[in-house]
Amino acid sequence: MDRQKTKNGMLGAEVRTDLALEAGERLQNDNAVPEGLRVEKLPCEDGAAVITRVHVESGEAARRMRKPIGTYITIEASALAGEDEGYHGKISELLSRQIRELLPKGEQRELLAVGLGNRAVTADALGPKTIDHLAVNRHILPFYREETRKKTFTVLSAIEPGVMAKTGIETAQVVQSIVRSLKPDAVLVLDSLAARSIHRLYTTIQISNTGIAPGSGVGNHRNAIDCETLGVPVIAVGIPMVVDAATIVRDALGDSRRQPVEQTEKKAAAYLEKLQNMYVTTKEIDEMTERLSFTLSEAINALTKRE
Amino acid sequence: MDRQKTKNGMLGAEVRTDLALEAGERLQNDNAVPEGLRVEKLPCEDGAAVITRVHVESGEAARRMRKPIGTYITIEASALAGEDEGYHGKISELLSRQIRELLPKGEQRELLAVGLGNRAVTADALGPKTIDHLAVNRHILPFYREETRKKTFTVLSAIEPGVMAKTGIETAQVVQSIVRSLKPDAVLVLDSLAARSIHRLYTTIQISNTGIAPGSGVGNHRNAIDCETLGVPVIAVGIPMVVDAATIVRDALGDSRRQPVEQTEKKAAAYLEKLQNMYVTTKEIDEMTERLSFTLSEAINALTKRE
Amino acid sequence: MDRQKTKNGMLGAEVRTDLALEAGERLQNDNAVPEGLRVEKLPCEDGAAVITRVHVESGEAARRMRKPIGTYITIEASALAGEDEGYHGKISELLSRQIRELLPKGEQRELLAVGLGNRAVTADALGPKTIDHLAVNRHILPFYREETRKKTFTVLSAIEPGVMAKTGIETAQVVQSIVRSLKPDAVLVLDSLAARSIHRLYTTIQISNTGIAPGSGVGNHRNAIDCETLGVPVIAVGIPMVVDAATIVRDALGDSRRQPVEQTEKKAAAYLEKLQNMYVTTKEIDEMTERLSFTLSEAINALTKRE
Amino acid sequence: MDRQKTKNGMLGAEVRTDLALEAGERLQNDNAVPEGLRVEKLPCEDGAAVITRVHVESGEAARRMRKPIGTYITIEASALAGEDEGYHGKISELLSRQIRELLPKGEQRELLAVGLGNRAVTADALGPKTIDHLAVNRHILPFYREETRKKTFTVLSAIEPGVMAKTGIETAQVVQSIVRSLKPDAVLVLDSLAARSIHRLYTTIQISNTGIAPGSGVGNHRNAIDCETLGVPVIAVGIPMVVDAATIVRDALGDSRRQPVEQTEKKAAAYLEKLQNMYVTTKEIDEMTERLSFTLSEAINALTKRE
Repeated sequence: MDRQKTKNGMLGAEVRTDLALEAGERLQNDNAVPEGLRVEKLPCEDGAAVITRVHVESGEAARRMRKPIGTYITIEASALAGEDEGYHGKISELLSRQIRELLPKGEQRELLAVGLGNRAVTADALGPKTIDHLAVNRHILPFYREETRKKTFTVLSAIEPGVMAKTGIETAQVVQSIVRSLKPDAVLVLDSLAARSIHRLYTTIQISNTGIAPGSGVGNHRNAIDCETLGVPVIAVGIPMVVDAATIVRDALGDSRRQPVEQTEKKAAAYLEKLQNMYVTTKEIDEMTERLSFTLSEAINALTKRE
Repeated sequence: MDRQKTKNGMLGAEVRTDLALEAGERLQNDNAVPEGLRVEKLPCEDGAAVITRVHVESGEAARRMRKPIGTYITIEASALAGEDEGYHGKISELLSRQIRELLPKGEQRELLAVGLGNRAVTADALGPKTIDHLAVNRHILPFYREETRKKTFTVLSAIEPGVMAKTGIETAQVVQSIVRSLKPDAVLVLDSLAARSIHRLYTTIQISNTGIAPGSGVGNHRNAIDCETLGVPVIAVGIPMVVDAATIVRDALGDSRRQPVEQTEKKAAAYLEKLQNMYVTTKEIDEMTERLSFTLSEAINALTKRE
Repeated sequence: MDRQKTKNGMLGAEVRTDLALEAGERLQNDNAVPEGLRVEKLPCEDGAAVITRVHVESGEAARRMRKPIGTYITIEASALAGEDEGYHGKISELLSRQIRELLPKGEQRELLAVGLGNRAVTADALGPKTIDHLAVNRHILPFYREETRKKTFTVLSAIEPGVMAKTGIETAQVVQSIVRSLKPDAVLVLDSLAARSIHRLYTTIQISNTGIAPGSGVGNHRNAIDCETLGVPVIAVGIPMVVDAATIVRDALGDSRRQPVEQTEKKAAAYLEKLQNMYVTTKEIDEMTERLSFTLSEAINALTKRE
Repeated sequence: MDRQKTKNGMLGAEVRTDLALEAGERLQNDNAVPEGLRVEKLPCEDGAAVITRVHVESGEAARRMRKPIGTYITIEASALAGEDEGYHGKISELLSRQIRELLPKGEQRELLAVGLGNRAVTADALGPKTIDHLAVNRHILPFYREETRKKTFTVLSAIEPGVMAKTGIETAQVVQSIVRSLKPDAVLVLDSLAARSIHRLYTTIQISNTGIAPGSGVGNHRNAIDCETLGVPVIAVGIPMVVDAATIVRDALGDSRRQPVEQTEKKAAAYLEKLQNMYVTTKEIDEMTERLSFTLSEAINALTKRE
């Protein structure tokens, strides 16, 4: 969530969201779906969740979506905001299968999990807290019996690279250093997301094979955490924990005006400027971060077992 | 901040704020200052802060302000959002003097500090965290030499009553129980506040002699933490840590429309409904809660020394 | 664990332990079992744990045990130090039944849980952290339908009184104040304990009907949290999280000497003096406190359901 | 503190300590000071602290000390266990100067601080918590004006590599990866230490130019964090936060016996086995970790300013 934000020039034109699903919906509402954008609803398992795949397949689609070319899987699971452990377990399994499909196939693979974000900032702590609960096995695998080792499909290790404001180092550089030394088969990046709609807080999981690209689908790639910079596939998994304050206001203005007058827009734009760096969330964020970090970690831990 | 919120029927009519200063400004902007509302700017010390006293002196003023009759002192200290320790120390001293003026006079007095809020919720943890840093002396005073005891002006004790969702007990009932047993000369209530303007986050301290009244200036007093329910003066000290999300949207709409159309309002009202329980804040809230709890505690600790 | 420690005059004579089971074993080893001390092993359920009841029934037994007259139930469950959730669940149920037997019988009862200790000190945080996970219902019961209310056997509320060094108030006084106001049918006190044997860390649960008596079985009762001071039955539940450093050394000396020479003792006594306020524990204490607080809270939450 | 412990075969022969000062004292007491071990007391500044330099200059000295060849500076500052901010500030300055002397000289240098240990384990959290308070500047230096940049003597960055049990990766490998990518002029390693004497808890700072060598002065170097494995000077700074439980017992037995009988030793050895992984500390450890991490970080932050 710490990556550089897109500058949105025009009021109401585009809203910031980390969810490809929301970006796609926006374009659909505006009757502006570009070529190369394909949305696929999956037949869902027992109604527990809705799974959607957004395929961004052209440069034009990437530019309009402000998301890199790739596949974005969204699990909408409204009961995730609740306490039902059985439900969380079910979504963990579902998530695990979705991640598995994006991972490189093979006899045995090695996976490095990366917990992005700042654990000292509640709104940004989901990644580091997920790392806390992972059952890493890379260091103990040499001590396993042959039999056990064969049963373990994925070798798992994990790091928390910290945030640049605290380390003085670009997060991408920290991750690249470790990846060069460990040479994993894939990297799994865990992060807090920002959504457009408050209904998505705590209830939507996005899995993508695009990694984390600061800014948008275009431009400077030096600080991306993706297949290009790391040299291995990068799967990103995240859950919206906040909504940009400016987005909320923009949406409210959009809802309440049909034909925005030029002058009105200017005023509103000045107001929105004030909202930079402000975010909207609920009092449950501390508790939800704790609980959802378990749900994510369970999904990843399940990867270490052969299906 | 956990107290029951005012239901605001009309869009844009009234916005939720815990700051009497903001409530007063709103009435002034609307040219609707009632009788019995008096605002007094104090000649400030060396420009470090602006001190304002809002006197709510009539039932009509209380109703319009949605604040109980009493005095509300506001210290506006914009640099509080920064890290300058010297500045924080200066504001602590200034705050200490303001609290002292509202306290009952006398040879030696006993003060009970109450840290309201839920320490597990960042946005609500200012009160409990302030309590953590207090230099309580009630239990060691009997062991002091006569001389030391005379120098200590205020006997200090402190409790963190918790929140009803965690204790199952009305917070007011917990505080009343302790007050009945301890019989302090005054109670000092510490709490996180909600402001209307994002500029007030972390930068404004409100001190009032009205205690904490759930709801507003009128109605059910059973669960108030005030002079009436506790039987001793109650001084409330708080700092805005969040802004209601609905307030932000209402303000934006207000700014962008001169003559709100009826139909527009209805739509916006529906939108605002969605924002219930949402709040706006910044990524700095975790760090600011930590720092400001020290600033408050230093002011209270200074009360134990004779001026 | 904060209560005043017993002064042990003679080296090796008596060691500090909060566990009646250990105090009884010591007397047995020394062939010094007093009249009025009765130990009863319970036929245990499926080998998951060993349950022992120590009955202290005479003043002489109380004096020698340094424990008030009453019943002390010990659940020895070695796998509690592990991560097996199923096992923790089983012990929670077992614990719940043992607490239930000590509670006053009746149609519907009201229970106040008290989390003793200091949450900022890992070794002392078990009580407060248990409180965090309780499903209190006292405040929502009035809103339940008649049917649901009948199914709920126990009305539960909870407080964390803090420690005197932080509040300036005797913990017993805080608890008494709340009890006077709430008038529960029983009080359930949760606390970290100190054991004599390091094997008991994290693996033994003690339930007693004696409350918490500072010092020992004799003397000053003003600051006790027990039936006498609160006016209602007090059940204390605790788990050893530390061993006194002096106890460890005393035991080692005891093991290595058969006939302690007078001069040797003096030296050792001087050494033990240095160990005051030192405790022995493991690196797992932070994690164990987290996990065991859940095990305790589950047992208490189960009390709110009719058996 | 997580590094592999020395196996001590003989009872009482050698005790585990991370402090070269204590290891040297032990040899002195036994009249067994080897050649190549030189201890130097520094004329101290205004009595605030005692500074000692232990020079381990031969392989024999290293073997006997169980410490790599190099220089170990010890600051004994008994008031560090107290709250006096002025004193802590003075020791920070003193520590800063001692670190500066061990650093490579030059126009401008780049320093990487590494916080070793597990932040979730209080006894092991000093390193990570120190990192939290560092004023890193590596990422903002390009944006400084030429003038400011010249005033900044040291470019500072920081990482928290985590512990192998949580990452699945050897800590040394994580550090090596980052060092290879960043190419700093020196690495500053921060860690919790284990002392032999309880009097050293929280009151002694050790600075060495040897890095962190798992085990002892001899053997497997693959997992060391030192000049040889990193290719740049490594300065280690640590403070004792715990004492090994076995060490305490061994010392007590040593104190109470002049002529240990063979049989007695065997019994005691069996007892000591039980104490593996147990440590001795005080209830203040949580608070002291918090406070001392500030004292260390202030010393390091001061390095970024030209003397």
